[in-house]
Amino acid sequence: MKSDINRRVAISGLALLTLSQTLLSAVAQAQGTQAAPLPSWNDGPAKQAIIDFVRVTTDQASPKFVTAEDRIATFDQDGTLWVEHPLYTQVVYCLDRVPVVVAQKPELKNREPFKTVLSGNREAIAKLSLRDLEEILIATLTGMPVETFQGEAKKWIESAKHERWNRLYAELTYQPMLEVLQYLRDYGFKTYIVTGGGQDFVRVYAQQAYGIPPEQVVGTAGGTKYGYDKDGKPFLTKEPKLLLNDNNAGKPEGIHLEIGRRPRAAFGNSTGDRQMLEYTGAGDGARLMMLVLHDDAQREYAYGPAQGLPDTKVGIFTQALYDEAKKDSWTVISMKNDWKRIFAFD
Amino acid sequence: MKSDINRRVAISGLALLTLSQTLLSAVAQAQGTQAAPLPSWNDGPAKQAIIDFVRVTTDQASPKFVTAEDRIATFDQDGTLWVEHPLYTQVVYCLDRVPVVVAQKPELKNREPFKTVLSGNREAIAKLSLRDLEEILIATLTGMPVETFQGEAKKWIESAKHERWNRLYAELTYQPMLEVLQYLRDYGFKTYIVTGGGQDFVRVYAQQAYGIPPEQVVGTAGGTKYGYDKDGKPFLTKEPKLLLNDNNAGKPEGIHLEIGRRPRAAFGNSTGDRQMLEYTGAGDGARLMMLVLHDDAQREYAYGPAQGLPDTKVGIFTQALYDEAKKDSWTVISMKNDWKRIFAFD
Repeated sequence: MKSDINRRVAISGLALLTLSQTLLSAVAQAQGTQAAPLPSWNDGPAKQAIIDFVRVTTDQASPKFVTAEDRIATFDQDGTLWVEHPLYTQVVYCLDRVPVVVAQKPELKNREPFKTVLSGNREAIAKLSLRDLEEILIATLTGMPVETFQGEAKKWIESAKHERWNRLYAELTYQPMLEVLQYLRDYGFKTYIVTGGGQDFVRVYAQQAYGIPPEQVVGTAGGTKYGYDKDGKPFLTKEPKLLLNDNNAGKPEGIHLEIGRRPRAAFGNSTGDRQMLEYTGAGDGARLMMLVLHDDAQREYAYGPAQGLPDTKVGIFTQALYDEAKKDSWTVISMKNDWKRIFAFD
Repeated sequence: MKSDINRRVAISGLALLTLSQTLLSAVAQAQGTQAAPLPSWNDGPAKQAIIDFVRVTTDQASPKFVTAEDRIATFDQDGTLWVEHPLYTQVVYCLDRVPVVVAQKPELKNREPFKTVLSGNREAIAKLSLRDLEEILIATLTGMPVETFQGEAKKWIESAKHERWNRLYAELTYQPMLEVLQYLRDYGFKTYIVTGGGQDFVRVYAQQAYGIPPEQVVGTAGGTKYGYDKDGKPFLTKEPKLLLNDNNAGKPEGIHLEIGRRPRAAFGNSTGDRQMLEYTGAGDGARLMMLVLHDDAQREYAYGPAQGLPDTKVGIFTQALYDEAKKDSWTVISMKNDWKRIFAFD
């Protein structure tokens, strides 16, 4: 008798859930096509491409309908979801950590590249080689327990500010892209970050900044080593051993490793995202590939050879990438023309 | 006006969803504590440990309440979710593939270990060394496009049968464990497989066999290589390069790499799962660690030194593991005593 009542309650609960899901879906669809989704986007081909993609993949009557579990969307982070100029945020973090590391290992004090970083000479720091940078990353990102790193990175991200806006880095996320993330999630897409940045670093703040949980962040990853402390308690140490360089070809390889399915939609802003967009586009059915073009020097930055602007160390958008986008019907997002505002505080 | 209507519809939809979720949760809790959850389990400490863990972590009034996003549960596969005797299923797959590989590369025909496998001599095959086995795994699991592998593995898993039961391998999943997976998911846990087996292999059937999507399968993983076919279409090739050996210490390392959080619950059955359980147990708050003991020779198998039974090549449950389980309050599941039935077809 008791179990019979429970069964009846369960059935009516399930019926109610189905009903409300149907209603919510209808609501979302009504909003999607009528009530102005993506409010920070100007009307135009970029906004339309997103809305069209969501419609054809989530309308059950559409020949391009995609089942809920196959709705995977991947986003590059630096320059696609937040500001990457003048330096990748994680590089700023690593430079900021150098004094702490040197305090722990005084023998580094007079050794390059640490000496240059400690000097505070910006011009000299800007000229550091990739190999120098790698040495700094290894010294500041590895050799400590995972949880020690997470604690330090969290403290930093909650206090360090971008010098141009004097705001926390997490405030420098692009409002139009936050709306795309939410819009896709409203329609049942699982949103992933696929970043050239450090996986462990981005996972520290991705939930708060983007609503993306740690397990949906794929990034450049080093190995860890399992061990025990003096009380026998196990912990993982971050090792200076590269497992995944999540740039260029490493992006589809990282997607296969940590997601195991081909994305339906992919967003990037540089040649480092090229292979991720190609891989996404090579699947059948509806696919959406988009590239953010930094062409708004006033509200953010303008850079990259595709616009005849100087090549910089970050987020390189080459002419070849631009040509491939045109040839393969990827959509280029003009920050200047497609976005009503750049940041939530605008 | 239109948008106002949409807003009101949206609000009532949301209210309805909240209401139905509350109701469903109440239903689940009622079922969990009254209407006999885990029906294939006998009453006893193992079943009670699972029910108690779910109650204290999901009841909002509990001091050990765990937020929804932190509800992660990890399961070893071979010997924990399905039969691993007399050989790991994936090893059977690889041995079955040898004739195909040799047909493509005739030079292997008279070379060991391929010659022995082709001979069909079971005793000789059983004596192959770990190095021989590794060579067979590399020859049969790498060197082809990811999608070719997935197609072959899918065809095999849908047709190959276990010789003792003459049933598909996916039918040899343990019914009591399928109930645990579902029970945890009903209470908002995200269920993951963390297997020493090949990540790509298990992902082929995990959704159908366990209701676990590819992105929630962590396993031993090789690298892939991005490239283009003659028409310029990109694809990934499985490379003979080990990225993650997801056994022993590799399990917590793999969990950190692909999930990025410490599990709340972990299930295993052998020394290969020891570190995963230790790592899970080292977190604060409520944690559940369980080990399946194969002590039912009649309905399944009985093996392992912890029972004074012969050591075998698969799923080794040592006396030391048993002692650690007792010391650290991990729960040992006796297949013989705790499970009413082993398989769905029993």
